Amino acid sequence: MRRIRHLARAFCRVQLFVLAVFMLAGVFSTVQAAWAGDPSGANTGKASDAMDGAGNTFIPSPPPTDTKDPTYAAKKQAYDEYAARAKYEPLAVQAADMAGQNRVAINIAWTLITGYLVMFMQAGFALVETGFCRGKNAAHVMMTNFMIYPIGMLGFWISGFAFMFGGMGSIGAPGSLGGVSPCNLPDWHGIIGTHGFFLKGNFYDVGVYALFLFQMVFMDTTATIPTGAMAERWKFSAFVLYGFYVSMVIYPIYGHWVWGGGWLAMLGATHGLGHGAVDFAGSGVVHSTGGFTALAGAIVLGPRIGKFIRGKPQPIPGHNLPMALLGTFILAFGWFGFNPGSTLGASGGMNLRISVIAVNTMLASASGAFITMCYWWWRYGKPDPSMCANGMLAGLVAITAPCAFVDSIGAVIIGAVAAVLVSLSVPLVEKAGVDDPVGAVSVHGTCGIWGVLSVGLFADGKYGIGWNTVGATSYMGVANRGVTGLFYGDASQLAAQAIDAVVVIAWSFAAAWIFFTLQKKLMGIRSAPQDEIEGLDLPEMGALGYTDRVPESEPEPVREPVGV
Amino acid sequence: MRRIRHLARAFCRVQLFVLAVFMLAGVFSTVQAAWAGDPSGANTGKASDAMDGAGNTFIPSPPPTDTKDPTYAAKKQAYDEYAARAKYEPLAVQAADMAGQNRVAINIAWTLITGYLVMFMQAGFALVETGFCRGKNAAHVMMTNFMIYPIGMLGFWISGFAFMFGGMGSIGAPGSLGGVSPCNLPDWHGIIGTHGFFLKGNFYDVGVYALFLFQMVFMDTTATIPTGAMAERWKFSAFVLYGFYVSMVIYPIYGHWVWGGGWLAMLGATHGLGHGAVDFAGSGVVHSTGGFTALAGAIVLGPRIGKFIRGKPQPIPGHNLPMALLGTFILAFGWFGFNPGSTLGASGGMNLRISVIAVNTMLASASGAFITMCYWWWRYGKPDPSMCANGMLAGLVAITAPCAFVDSIGAVIIGAVAAVLVSLSVPLVEKAGVDDPVGAVSVHGTCGIWGVLSVGLFADGKYGIGWNTVGATSYMGVANRGVTGLFYGDASQLAAQAIDAVVVIAWSFAAAWIFFTLQKKLMGIRSAPQDEIEGLDLPEMGALGYTDRVPESEPEPVREPVGV
Amino acid sequence: MRRIRHLARAFCRVQLFVLAVFMLAGVFSTVQAAWAGDPSGANTGKASDAMDGAGNTFIPSPPPTDTKDPTYAAKKQAYDEYAARAKYEPLAVQAADMAGQNRVAINIAWTLITGYLVMFMQAGFALVETGFCRGKNAAHVMMTNFMIYPIGMLGFWISGFAFMFGGMGSIGAPGSLGGVSPCNLPDWHGIIGTHGFFLKGNFYDVGVYALFLFQMVFMDTTATIPTGAMAERWKFSAFVLYGFYVSMVIYPIYGHWVWGGGWLAMLGATHGLGHGAVDFAGSGVVHSTGGFTALAGAIVLGPRIGKFIRGKPQPIPGHNLPMALLGTFILAFGWFGFNPGSTLGASGGMNLRISVIAVNTMLASASGAFITMCYWWWRYGKPDPSMCANGMLAGLVAITAPCAFVDSIGAVIIGAVAAVLVSLSVPLVEKAGVDDPVGAVSVHGTCGIWGVLSVGLFADGKYGIGWNTVGATSYMGVANRGVTGLFYGDASQLAAQAIDAVVVIAWSFAAAWIFFTLQKKLMGIRSAPQDEIEGLDLPEMGALGYTDRVPESEPEPVREPVGV
Repeated sequence: MRRIRHLARAFCRVQLFVLAVFMLAGVFSTVQAAWAGDPSGANTGKASDAMDGAGNTFIPSPPPTDTKDPTYAAKKQAYDEYAARAKYEPLAVQAADMAGQNRVAINIAWTLITGYLVMFMQAGFALVETGFCRGKNAAHVMMTNFMIYPIGMLGFWISGFAFMFGGMGSIGAPGSLGGVSPCNLPDWHGIIGTHGFFLKGNFYDVGVYALFLFQMVFMDTTATIPTGAMAERWKFSAFVLYGFYVSMVIYPIYGHWVWGGGWLAMLGATHGLGHGAVDFAGSGVVHSTGGFTALAGAIVLGPRIGKFIRGKPQPIPGHNLPMALLGTFILAFGWFGFNPGSTLGASGGMNLRISVIAVNTMLASASGAFITMCYWWWRYGKPDPSMCANGMLAGLVAITAPCAFVDSIGAVIIGAVAAVLVSLSVPLVEKAGVDDPVGAVSVHGTCGIWGVLSVGLFADGKYGIGWNTVGATSYMGVANRGVTGLFYGDASQLAAQAIDAVVVIAWSFAAAWIFFTLQKKLMGIRSAPQDEIEGLDLPEMGALGYTDRVPESEPEPVREPVGV
Repeated sequence: MRRIRHLARAFCRVQLFVLAVFMLAGVFSTVQAAWAGDPSGANTGKASDAMDGAGNTFIPSPPPTDTKDPTYAAKKQAYDEYAARAKYEPLAVQAADMAGQNRVAINIAWTLITGYLVMFMQAGFALVETGFCRGKNAAHVMMTNFMIYPIGMLGFWISGFAFMFGGMGSIGAPGSLGGVSPCNLPDWHGIIGTHGFFLKGNFYDVGVYALFLFQMVFMDTTATIPTGAMAERWKFSAFVLYGFYVSMVIYPIYGHWVWGGGWLAMLGATHGLGHGAVDFAGSGVVHSTGGFTALAGAIVLGPRIGKFIRGKPQPIPGHNLPMALLGTFILAFGWFGFNPGSTLGASGGMNLRISVIAVNTMLASASGAFITMCYWWWRYGKPDPSMCANGMLAGLVAITAPCAFVDSIGAVIIGAVAAVLVSLSVPLVEKAGVDDPVGAVSVHGTCGIWGVLSVGLFADGKYGIGWNTVGATSYMGVANRGVTGLFYGDASQLAAQAIDAVVVIAWSFAAAWIFFTLQKKLMGIRSAPQDEIEGLDLPEMGALGYTDRVPESEPEPVREPVGV
Repeated sequence: MRRIRHLARAFCRVQLFVLAVFMLAGVFSTVQAAWAGDPSGANTGKASDAMDGAGNTFIPSPPPTDTKDPTYAAKKQAYDEYAARAKYEPLAVQAADMAGQNRVAINIAWTLITGYLVMFMQAGFALVETGFCRGKNAAHVMMTNFMIYPIGMLGFWISGFAFMFGGMGSIGAPGSLGGVSPCNLPDWHGIIGTHGFFLKGNFYDVGVYALFLFQMVFMDTTATIPTGAMAERWKFSAFVLYGFYVSMVIYPIYGHWVWGGGWLAMLGATHGLGHGAVDFAGSGVVHSTGGFTALAGAIVLGPRIGKFIRGKPQPIPGHNLPMALLGTFILAFGWFGFNPGSTLGASGGMNLRISVIAVNTMLASASGAFITMCYWWWRYGKPDPSMCANGMLAGLVAITAPCAFVDSIGAVIIGAVAAVLVSLSVPLVEKAGVDDPVGAVSVHGTCGIWGVLSVGLFADGKYGIGWNTVGATSYMGVANRGVTGLFYGDASQLAAQAIDAVVVIAWSFAAAWIFFTLQKKLMGIRSAPQDEIEGLDLPEMGALGYTDRVPESEPEPVREPVGV
């Protein structure tokens, strides 16, 4: 036992040391971007940002300087012609300047507004999870969902954003948010970013701040998923530490691999696997990460007292279905930010695709809820409300990765399959002896993986031209062909997605399991049994969720060995 | 009885057959639009979409080809002058290209975001209706409001959208969403659209998908209104079938008549009645349709057990006023999408009117709530909270049709009149023996009709130039004169509105009454009386809304004959 | 006593008379703006509105006419050069026209959408306050929060907007909303605006209506704050009158001083105090005004029965923490409209700063909640959920004034200080014998003042160039230097902020105290004691909040002298 503690402490110290080295390296790095940040926005959004739907810019390219570039001559000629023309049309250049400002303004406004919607999903998670739990723990469940927002945010501001986007090397920072972003720096071997801690220095920039806001609320979604699977027995102090760990380590490192230009994103460029790992809005990055972190947590934590009697799972119904369904509506509403916002813009370079993304998102949620209702009605005799809610969420989770790459029929099918998967997964998880009060593992874990894989099946090639630096001029011998799945002829994309799926499960489960296990040994992560039986609100939070509730008639609590 | 069943089955079969013919005709139609859809958005939003506030385009018009057009010469000259000029200013043309992309991006973003707000109204309806019902049915009422969203969506995707917008012939598809839309096809005799089932083929287009999203959530508002009037006794399986019927038939067909370029919209062009039926955001199309469908449903379904004792209506107070008031807030919030979003854009062609629309919407909700409060305080001694909520909604329903055509004083008056109407209508509906637990018939039916008529009274001519193809160059002898009501000199507009009002009542009541009556005969539409008395949650949904509630002290249920 | 009544009546009459004079003066004023309003939006958003990030316009300046202007020659030359050039590039001018339309469309859409979010905060306030109160008053507390929205709106429409923005003289109307606004008129000696009652005449304009919507919801935030501090004992009829008073008098007059170009805004130009009173989104204008109005109200009203027993404050826990936390989430969500929307635009003239504003807002809320949690955990042993919610709100209130002027580290510090302040202020207010059931005085009053002062400390000079007409070309000897606080070298800014802080406390407390005291004498402002003990829902509203609740076990109500 003492040895384990020693080991644990050593592990923590090593981890802290490594993190500290990266942070220090970043803060004091001399490899600064050549451009300064633009905190006031006065210099962001210019003629060079003006762009049409196909991605053609007003200024053909920055004046080329790399004479060894094979396209140097062509680029130079295009630029010279433009420059000659511009002398005769100074007002047109000015008008384009205004158009560039407008474009960046549209894109930043779009990114912020959709980010707000994602932030509001926190309220949805809080309501769904609290509604699905018992009234005696209402304040406790609400508070984990409430406090993860500030805790995660601070963690992401300290180091999460830097690890994830502080060096987007090959894929480059999103141009839709204006000019050249300070994120446009090399990362550390495709593993981790090393710049932008505390958003300091040249990261004090209007484009970077917009990106930070949007990515922060995504991270918070991941962070809040385990609060459902681990609800009704999680020690609050243990939860607080977890909040920093997930936002500073688990989420941003894997996130960098897929969205920050890391090694999974580069599988296409480096190993010829389709366009690399493609996950438009995070079925994997956000939901699977959350789902498998939740699974690890629920396993290490053990089931609630009374959940399993002689190994048989007992139903513990949620105390407030209207609350849970309101939460589901809020989540479905916020998802219209989650998916369409992941373009990081509305104008220029096929960003008008947002409408297709929004409709796909909506339709997958519909088939998810509808098929789940049919399934449970047919299988168990009633259109179970909790499962209908989880079915809608399952459809949403699944469509999150493929939403930009499929048509409406694909979206309906993806949602329908997710409905079946979540309906099978919920009893399966329970049968495996894991207590997940709200079905978070099935909704976010299982269906997240399905979402990642479905890109490799249903992507129709209409969108994602040049994704992850692959196929900018042509793909599979066709010009203007984007990300393509197996059903449209590209098996290698499915391979990339499968690798991504394996990696996200392995990384998030392992990183979380190690953390929770160590934490359990070092400080304990579970509430006192007596508190759990009587309700966590007063002993853990110091206040009742409701002063005027009637206790549920519960199955007599049976004390069984707790934990794994 | 057997004869009725035969008749009913025959009716259903005929209806299904007709629908199938239209769908097949559409799917296999050779009358395809000449242009393909643009699924990636790469070709949407160009110089030809750039437009100033007055509606002037950058490119004067597409090169005219119709030499028989009387304005051919003028158009040709304008275009030739532009083309000559464009040779000297290639960069200006490019800058305009960027401006066109920006304009369409603004408009699509606006349409999506406002559509999201309308979608969120579903949550508002769910809370208002559940709050106004009894706790024993909380899961049931929530679930009808929850499942109508996916069910209606699937129905609208299958055929509703095609019937409504799959052929906008004379009025043309909304240019604000970019280029020429595939919707720009002829319909079938002004009765029904015949293209775009499953959003397939050239309807896979960024502009069409944006339109679909916005129109889908509007349909869902109509579809969810009867869940209030028919609450606490509606068999869930009957409700599910209704969900498809309203989204595939009732709503889209009438909707086509007013918004899809159908015969009511054309009353101005064909019969000289003002600008034809004008209903900016759907006091009639959405709310009256929902309200009179609800009335038919409530009549066919019959009152709740215990509502009328010896013919005298008994008050059955809602179980949760904070929930209902929160729902009202959400509805008032979502209405800022509903009305201002109905421009389908913010930039170009007087779309800046959105701010006037938003303020009118807000002010009518204020006078609606305030006057209702005064009325009930004065008449019954207390500022009844339920009625204040309904008063705000009444003002919102009423302003929905006229919001774009009136000034702020008109809006305040329209809301105040709606307040009086709803306050009179609620007791009247009850006195007529109809049990409408939430007042849906009065709020959406009665005040919807008032909204339709009020356009014909208060429209001040400042907006709606060329509406429904009427008066593009001048109206009533004045240039730049839009939709005008009686108080500003155009009595014929009021006539068009009156016809529209009669038609919406007749169509939606009849289409719904026939459906519900047949359904009642064929499968039954009402919950079992025992379930109704004990609460529908467990028997119908399989789960309690609340596990820890105290039953209301209810009036002793008196069994009376149920139904009409 | 009779004398006091006489005095009170006289005061009211004088006040009404003065208001009437201003309103009449405004309505019949011949000092009309030279330009008409643009109700259709056809003439708003032109080439003259096109603007780049640094604020450079496409048309250098309107053709200068004032030959005595020292810059006349330079302006004339610039304009003449442009005009000469424009003849050669007519298409570029047209393209700029489209860009100008786009810019105004972006800005109006941004202003509306963020305004909607602020409107939704009403729901957040309603939930927070109702959740923190007892279930027996749930309908009453909800209704004050619900009805303040329509009541305040009507008051603001009648006179509030005119007093606040009906004459923005020196600082000028916000150009981001298009053209020259009718608000661009002189006010009355920097004290009060005198145009725009009922939004009539040339105020019927798309830009003005957008401004009205945004400012209305801000006013409503102020108006709803006292409903928390005065909850559970406020007579509803007295509340209704208050609603008109705060929206027509208290808020708009002080608001004019800071945001309408009044004397506090001009402290920089007239007395050399920094950039004058700077309050970006209203820590002072909105929150302190609300907080000190609430303090006056709570004092005049007296504590709830049972709150103080023998002078010792008794805890009265809220009945529904999940409701209160949901409300807090809604408020945090709406604040993303509140602060970033206060740019009144996204495009042109450094409006891209919105992303920095949004991130600062978010980070201050995080440190506010997190530090509060730590403080209460450390100080009282539990992470009190109510205080965590109030801590998040405290951070949000504090960052509201400085959000645009600081970087992310400043924001985190400002939020952390607010956390400590609110944690100290809540017990202090209680100790002073003031009963504030929800902590509104501490959250909005105390932290609002901190927010105002923090501008004078942390503003880093990156933003706010030319704010309140100060330092347009250079400030502190540096070009492009904006609002600067003490820590960045400008002590005079802190002086301006301190004056503003004193004024807002004095004005709002005094204006409210006089009103409430008179109202108390004339009509009474407190519910009957028996009603208060049994719950206000039935006696005051005529309906129970919940029909199925269990009464809280309350401390035996002790009748003590009520009021001050």
